[in-house]
Amino acid sequence: MQLNLQSLVRTIPDYPRKGVMFRDITTLIEHPEGFKQSIEAIAAPHRNMGITHVAGIEARGFIFGAGVAIALGVGFIPVRKKGKLTGETIGQNYALEYGVDTIEIHADVIGPGDKVLLVDDLIATGGTAIAAVGLLRRTGASVNHAAFVIDLPDLGGAEKLRAENVAIHSLIAFEGH
Amino acid sequence: MQLNLQSLVRTIPDYPRKGVMFRDITTLIEHPEGFKQSIEAIAAPHRNMGITHVAGIEARGFIFGAGVAIALGVGFIPVRKKGKLTGETIGQNYALEYGVDTIEIHADVIGPGDKVLLVDDLIATGGTAIAAVGLLRRTGASVNHAAFVIDLPDLGGAEKLRAENVAIHSLIAFEGH
Repeated sequence: MQLNLQSLVRTIPDYPRKGVMFRDITTLIEHPEGFKQSIEAIAAPHRNMGITHVAGIEARGFIFGAGVAIALGVGFIPVRKKGKLTGETIGQNYALEYGVDTIEIHADVIGPGDKVLLVDDLIATGGTAIAAVGLLRRTGASVNHAAFVIDLPDLGGAEKLRAENVAIHSLIAFEGH
Repeated sequence: MQLNLQSLVRTIPDYPRKGVMFRDITTLIEHPEGFKQSIEAIAAPHRNMGITHVAGIEARGFIFGAGVAIALGVGFIPVRKKGKLTGETIGQNYALEYGVDTIEIHADVIGPGDKVLLVDDLIATGGTAIAAVGLLRRTGASVNHAAFVIDLPDLGGAEKLRAENVAIHSLIAFEGH
């Protein structure tokens, strides 16, 4: 039976601050069928496309990204916060609401000829996802597809990613912020 | 073809400090066949056992745990560092080399009748794994199986877990520290 995935996402009002509706995906992944069906719904449209790797953004993107990598039978690229990866890395800064953050990947695991699918739990303003796409592309790999469990379309991130020639697939959309 | 998984783990000597051989599993997961085969090797002995959930420990345990949950078709319980989960949680302290840390899970997603498989990338002294087993058992769920990609048997963690009536499955063992 196909579940209503949206109904499995818990909404916590006024978190982390007043006026924000926090969309909590843990209730979805902790549900045995919910996790399976959400991974399959992300993987299915990306089969037979020649995807060689799934990249997932720390930490919730690891959960969905690793699941999708297993469903597609490909390798998994962890996109981590600064200083968490050993070995040779490349990094990319991106702006936060207050300040700057950095994500890193290994420098030498993908390159020209590889096709990467970026996966994260949620896209809002898109700052992290756009930084991740740019970072992955610096290796020479192509990154033309990204998938998210939740899209908050009013925050414009998906639109910005499409402007970077990334096709977006999302399972659930919540209007508003 | 069955890969030699051990040969896909990169060893970084004297990291994070002199005398420690750091076992880096990213080279294993970034290898398309390596990730797939390591997940299948963890999942296979745990099929047809009535496992209802896989619990993975933040952050590398998310990668393996989510993959195994998808391979087994069950839900995924994130065991997170303090303050990372929203909603009602329960927590467990455990000793570090210097100081104390805390892990948390949601209070209400598993209970009596559930059978949880704990998954992490590596078991060394076992402090975090033993804390996770104790925390998961406080819900009433049974936690009689744990799986690790790497065991460092000389550090004694696997032995301590077995003394807590947890059967251990690991893919790779490295002697020494």
